[in-house]
Amino acid sequence: MECKSALTEAKGDLSEAEIVLRKRGITSAGKKASRTTKQGLIGSYIHHGGQLGVLVEVNCESDFVARTAEFQELVHDLAMHIAAADPQFVRKEDVTAEALERERDIERARALAEKKPEKILDKIIEGRLAKFYEAVCLYEQPFVKDNTLTIDQLIKTKIAKLKENIVISRFIRFKVGDAPAAPSGGGESEPAQA
Amino acid sequence: MECKSALTEAKGDLSEAEIVLRKRGITSAGKKASRTTKQGLIGSYIHHGGQLGVLVEVNCESDFVARTAEFQELVHDLAMHIAAADPQFVRKEDVTAEALERERDIERARALAEKKPEKILDKIIEGRLAKFYEAVCLYEQPFVKDNTLTIDQLIKTKIAKLKENIVISRFIRFKVGDAPAAPSGGGESEPAQA
Repeated sequence: MECKSALTEAKGDLSEAEIVLRKRGITSAGKKASRTTKQGLIGSYIHHGGQLGVLVEVNCESDFVARTAEFQELVHDLAMHIAAADPQFVRKEDVTAEALERERDIERARALAEKKPEKILDKIIEGRLAKFYEAVCLYEQPFVKDNTLTIDQLIKTKIAKLKENIVISRFIRFKVGDAPAAPSGGGESEPAQA
Repeated sequence: MECKSALTEAKGDLSEAEIVLRKRGITSAGKKASRTTKQGLIGSYIHHGGQLGVLVEVNCESDFVARTAEFQELVHDLAMHIAAADPQFVRKEDVTAEALERERDIERARALAEKKPEKILDKIIEGRLAKFYEAVCLYEQPFVKDNTLTIDQLIKTKIAKLKENIVISRFIRFKVGDAPAAPSGGGESEPAQA
């Protein structure tokens, strides 16, 4: 039904219809974003003969949806994406103030070194910070299996399809040899968490 | 060869010979404990239809050992053990000063409430702290697949067998719904790490 009306709206153009569907998905997803997500799945992905591993928690509203093949596939795809794209944070809001400040300083120094005019300096820096977010935040990254979608858009299409709010709550990525050296008394590092 | 001499030492008693072998293993393992471990494997274990997941990094000295079936089985067993036994820290040394102090306070109060004589109070508290370490530290826990061995002893028998130092460097355990609520600005919790 939905497909047919999208196809009509797109005047019979298949790829255009897909965009229409996605836009609708994204629209209807917005309404579900405030719903509580306490169910879900933990997914893992081991890559490169055990040299790299990812654990991710993806939540939805009911265990019924958590058990669907579509949700399971999403969790698997996200674990694989994290292994490949190496995000540092779940969302923009999770970027620490220090990380953002450090990045801003670097970009300001870079823009100055490039002798960019003072009046457009802030605009340049903000533009480059947007790229930084795209590089380090899972939700902002282009999906490795389909880079026409960001992870945020991928999640929104799934929300529209499965009719439940879906949230990536945390992930961690271990690479052999990357564990910080043991400080006496035990040091700990952190998984990215929304 | 080693088995035969252990059997001789144990006067032909098989289970006694195993103990002899283990003791030898543990002795020879001690010598390797200072060797650098930069190779290894990341292992994962997903339990309960995706409701619980573990990621663990186990290191050894060479990728040759990392690729052996025996090492792979060890990593898998450890991931499974962590899923079941829910340790909070890798080693005793990793228990935070706060966690230890809190535990000491509880045990002191408990011992006082039980009207234990003042002069044996410290001894009682230390005894209970040993139990606390056994409950929360991976290396101190009895191995779920064979509770006659601690994880520390299991690792030592593998060191003796594979003739390389082996170290569990970090693990994390995700349970659906256990992620801390999102603090604004992004909160992060920690994997246990040696």
